[in-house]
Amino acid sequence: MFREKIKVLDCTIRDGGLINNHDFDLRFVRAVYKALSEAGVDYMEVGYKNSKSLFSPKEFGRWKFCDDEDIHKVIEGIESKTKISVMVDVDRVDIEDVKPRRESPVAMIRVASYVKDIDKAIFLVNHFADKGYETTVNIMAISRALDNELTECLAQLEKESKAQAVYIVDSFGALYQETTEFLIKKAKSILKTKEVGMHGHNNQQLAFCNTIEAIIHDANYVDGTVYGLGRAAGNCPLELILGFLKNPKFDIRPVLDLISTEFIPLRDKIEWGYIIPYAITGILDEHPRAAMALRNSEKKENYREFYESLVGEDEE
Amino acid sequence: MFREKIKVLDCTIRDGGLINNHDFDLRFVRAVYKALSEAGVDYMEVGYKNSKSLFSPKEFGRWKFCDDEDIHKVIEGIESKTKISVMVDVDRVDIEDVKPRRESPVAMIRVASYVKDIDKAIFLVNHFADKGYETTVNIMAISRALDNELTECLAQLEKESKAQAVYIVDSFGALYQETTEFLIKKAKSILKTKEVGMHGHNNQQLAFCNTIEAIIHDANYVDGTVYGLGRAAGNCPLELILGFLKNPKFDIRPVLDLISTEFIPLRDKIEWGYIIPYAITGILDEHPRAAMALRNSEKKENYREFYESLVGEDEE
Repeated sequence: MFREKIKVLDCTIRDGGLINNHDFDLRFVRAVYKALSEAGVDYMEVGYKNSKSLFSPKEFGRWKFCDDEDIHKVIEGIESKTKISVMVDVDRVDIEDVKPRRESPVAMIRVASYVKDIDKAIFLVNHFADKGYETTVNIMAISRALDNELTECLAQLEKESKAQAVYIVDSFGALYQETTEFLIKKAKSILKTKEVGMHGHNNQQLAFCNTIEAIIHDANYVDGTVYGLGRAAGNCPLELILGFLKNPKFDIRPVLDLISTEFIPLRDKIEWGYIIPYAITGILDEHPRAAMALRNSEKKENYREFYESLVGEDEE
Repeated sequence: MFREKIKVLDCTIRDGGLINNHDFDLRFVRAVYKALSEAGVDYMEVGYKNSKSLFSPKEFGRWKFCDDEDIHKVIEGIESKTKISVMVDVDRVDIEDVKPRRESPVAMIRVASYVKDIDKAIFLVNHFADKGYETTVNIMAISRALDNELTECLAQLEKESKAQAVYIVDSFGALYQETTEFLIKKAKSILKTKEVGMHGHNNQQLAFCNTIEAIIHDANYVDGTVYGLGRAAGNCPLELILGFLKNPKFDIRPVLDLISTEFIPLRDKIEWGYIIPYAITGILDEHPRAAMALRNSEKKENYREFYESLVGEDEE
């Protein structure tokens, strides 16, 4: 698939940071930045911009806050066309912390929001756009969104927001490709002046599948992470996206090296990927938090009991 | 997706046997059979029917030969509606070894064939059908088949063979869902009197994706293996198929137990799954044999060199 407009965003450090309290060391983050730059990846997302009055820098690593000076330490001395992105959660950012674009190493700010918070997201994204940043809105937990509410949300984003792209985020790894097709077509039909993006999770080994499906239906922003690193089941493996896309500007080889040297050793220290409790929460369209708790308990391989605990709840 | 005609075949022991010379012990195979029976899986494939004049029973385990008496040892005492299947390779079976269906515990024989060997496959499959077996032909290496030759092959299967189903086999894990859609539609359009099946490999984490895609386009025979066990990158995880299909006859829970108790320990002894050299051969539409050799060498994590060795060959 060669479509020049397709932009690849790597969110290894940002989504991976959800496993280790955003505490990747600078050497590692620079290695990722260097490889992504050589691979021709369009954006690298390094973390969240969170208010230090809400979260303590003593408890979290620097990529929970993404101070400009830390980002400078990542990029300095490395030749690159890869732009830096940071993510912002509704209600967790102090907008005064965000300098104008021309004073910052950050190029893009992505606002993550549930459908219900879309008014707050639009306020934030317009604020950052006015400061000169490229911006997107990422609609989380899309598999739980009611169709009428999602329609209204997309219409509002089209009409009121300055975001250049709106992402469909399969937070629970619950989407099959038929639903991805439905959602991307729906978004494309409403967002006439914006691009559509796809962020998958890999609970059912469908993150890459859903990313391809989104591309087929004209999504032009796609997220991946190196070796699929990310919370719980992880994300769409960047190396597979690069293997699929035919744009000659991409080179898979620096990413292969990065996996060899950094991610194989990392996999011995932290856990992510296709693990049955995450598959179960994906199948059941649930947040992975119960599965993450299970994996930190002595019952980590007790799958049937875990399954029963989720399907046995009376929801009426 | 609830379509009553969909048949699920588990080939854990058969495809997994390609990793360990078909040497799973009887206790393990019985545990798999019991769980599949409780889960409502339609077929269990236990191995290959190979000629003992071509392969020595001293070098290979019993599931390379699948003697009826060994299959009896698997199934005896276990209540089950799951039918037993064996696979046959063109030029490797002694047809005199195969008793009539009414004297055998085997219900189905699947003939694996490349497009070029389809005349031999048709001879074999008709022979087994005449002996009373359910039969399929599984067209291997489909990603390498030339379109005109595949058309002729499918037309011949429709006209000359007694097989009840014809499988598309993505031997190299190279198919994306667009090509799967193309191939399944093509097969359905030619095979008017037969069912179509899908057997995926997971090199690019697309085996489940391609299986869903095949189901969407009316394939009714799908293969899976427990926890994706299978040579190299492995196969479509059975547990994901069962999570996807809505037929109430299926129960995922016995398979979850089986993974907990048998497959998590097994994963420490033999290797399969999403591993970068297999992803590379999938991306490049190559047989995984070079990647398997790499994984048995000291350069097992040297991905870039491996990639270069494959793309650097002059093929003109």
